[in-house]
Amino acid sequence: MPQREYNIAIVGATGAVGKAMREMLAQSSIAVSELRLMATERSKGMEYTFRDTTIAVEEITPLRLEGLDFVLFGAGGEVSKRWAPHAVSCGAVCVDNSSAYRMDPSVPLIVPEVNAHRLADHRGIVANPNCSTIQMLVALKPLHDRYRIQRLIVSTYQSVSGAGDKAIEETIAQTKAYLQGQSIDPAVLPVASLPIKHPIAFNVIPQIDAFGAHGYTLEEHKMINETHKIFEDDTIGIAATCIRVPVLNSHSESVYIQCAQDIVLEEVYALLHQAPGVVVVDAPDSQQYPMPIEATGHKAVFVGRVRPDLTDSRGLHLWIVSDNLLKGAAWNAVQIIETLIHPSTGALSTVRGVNP
Amino acid sequence: MPQREYNIAIVGATGAVGKAMREMLAQSSIAVSELRLMATERSKGMEYTFRDTTIAVEEITPLRLEGLDFVLFGAGGEVSKRWAPHAVSCGAVCVDNSSAYRMDPSVPLIVPEVNAHRLADHRGIVANPNCSTIQMLVALKPLHDRYRIQRLIVSTYQSVSGAGDKAIEETIAQTKAYLQGQSIDPAVLPVASLPIKHPIAFNVIPQIDAFGAHGYTLEEHKMINETHKIFEDDTIGIAATCIRVPVLNSHSESVYIQCAQDIVLEEVYALLHQAPGVVVVDAPDSQQYPMPIEATGHKAVFVGRVRPDLTDSRGLHLWIVSDNLLKGAAWNAVQIIETLIHPSTGALSTVRGVNP
Repeated sequence: MPQREYNIAIVGATGAVGKAMREMLAQSSIAVSELRLMATERSKGMEYTFRDTTIAVEEITPLRLEGLDFVLFGAGGEVSKRWAPHAVSCGAVCVDNSSAYRMDPSVPLIVPEVNAHRLADHRGIVANPNCSTIQMLVALKPLHDRYRIQRLIVSTYQSVSGAGDKAIEETIAQTKAYLQGQSIDPAVLPVASLPIKHPIAFNVIPQIDAFGAHGYTLEEHKMINETHKIFEDDTIGIAATCIRVPVLNSHSESVYIQCAQDIVLEEVYALLHQAPGVVVVDAPDSQQYPMPIEATGHKAVFVGRVRPDLTDSRGLHLWIVSDNLLKGAAWNAVQIIETLIHPSTGALSTVRGVNP
Repeated sequence: MPQREYNIAIVGATGAVGKAMREMLAQSSIAVSELRLMATERSKGMEYTFRDTTIAVEEITPLRLEGLDFVLFGAGGEVSKRWAPHAVSCGAVCVDNSSAYRMDPSVPLIVPEVNAHRLADHRGIVANPNCSTIQMLVALKPLHDRYRIQRLIVSTYQSVSGAGDKAIEETIAQTKAYLQGQSIDPAVLPVASLPIKHPIAFNVIPQIDAFGAHGYTLEEHKMINETHKIFEDDTIGIAATCIRVPVLNSHSESVYIQCAQDIVLEEVYALLHQAPGVVVVDAPDSQQYPMPIEATGHKAVFVGRVRPDLTDSRGLHLWIVSDNLLKGAAWNAVQIIETLIHPSTGALSTVRGVNP
């Protein structure tokens, strides 16, 4: 039986996430008959290689969203809200990387290793979670299943690529200037749309996204709300502190969990070693642990610094690192399409492939 | 009545901490009749300006440790262990910035804003705590007094200056090379004396100091043990995750506390505003919060991102930033001498001076 081929579009194909989506789709098991790369008019005519063809970027239009099986949305929330409903009405399934639909009760929010079973609920749109949430939950899923997490406290060390190409460029230019004894006024970070900017070169900025209720940023609220939705458990007490660090790519997280049951360290390692999408890097004797420069370019979620809480037998500390453009965005989105195509084996078969 | 003048030596006067000790002593209220700058033979003859005199660096010798009132030790633990007992036997009081004597029950471990009363116990040596511990406890002291902290979970974002001049030089050289598309093999970080090195440029290294028991690094154990000693409360359940970030100077900390009593946010702000040595920078509406580049060069401990725990009325989150070479090392040590000279007003009078 010949393999079925699919018509796919990437909306926002030229940005940091769009580039990763092109690469992850090319590496995937998905047979693509036609790939359309879409962006704003500004990028029209740019050309990219996909597998063995060259594809020119086209402007997003209603007509060109017809005849598609899947659309990957890698631009901002406004673009998704404007175009995804139309693409759905034309028959496509949309996987949206923005936050526009994540908390919509009618839209499944999917990490294939965690809640692929919820994909069956979709009505045309599937939401890709926040990058920080995805990597944390891939690692915590087997521990939540076994010990039931009651408390979760996370402090993040997030790379600038999470804020897009302009943030990467700003970080490099600003760092170069600093090392030459010069300075460049910051223009992008912490939040491009807000008035105040702060330097990121050799600095740490304790703000990602705008501030919301109770002094928490929206990024911090996302980690709380999305974890509740994906784990289908609102009873977990979650606190997040989201921090931008001068790292170009890959997010790191210092995570503490307190569970309903006593934790057995040997069992934790066994669970993590078996967990799809997880690679354990934890050898203090040889100074091996996950680090962002080593995670970059890989699809896995790397876990190390696994330690018992010394004062609570139900507590555990972990250090979780992953490429925020891959598992945190593009790879998770492509995995969702693979799982939609092959519900029984999709996510697992491809996820197993990530282990080095 | 003429002010009494003191003979003081700085041992390890040429390194990152020694330089900060020279500066902090010069800015202090202490009248110095003679300052001796001591280092290994290699640095002999280097000259530094102190107030209105120029002082040549001399080699440490038993003879030159005689006739001193105070000795500031800013070199490593081995140097302190070799020379401090002799200086004490010659009549000096030694303030030691290394970890050599910190957990010695006969040596007081002092943060003047927190436990100046323990200075009276000294037998010639006073220990300066770990940089990460000092800044955390200055901020937490009023909250512990009011609410009694039962649980403390901290994740740090520590600058490279905490690992000394060579780590600063390595970070700058490595970052320059990276930006030019070149690479330099790491030679200093994470721990100069251990075999494996990792890059710090645009990276995060989840190891500070060697590994100890239970998968915790010695830096993490220090934060636990020193907090227990300084707060004189072994019942606090403490966990620390200590992370090196590519920041040249000033440490940041994401801190969670759970207390014995419900926390009233307005009261927390009032307590922090009144706390000696603390400057509150916490204005989400105008995107103001503590950051390492802004803390550098200041003596204060900066506190912001103060947030209630949304699921536990006894929980609170804080973001604490301070210059690890100043309040985390040299300034705390000089404050100890000021407090020894003026037990009733020393620390407080000078600490008040830090508020901008």
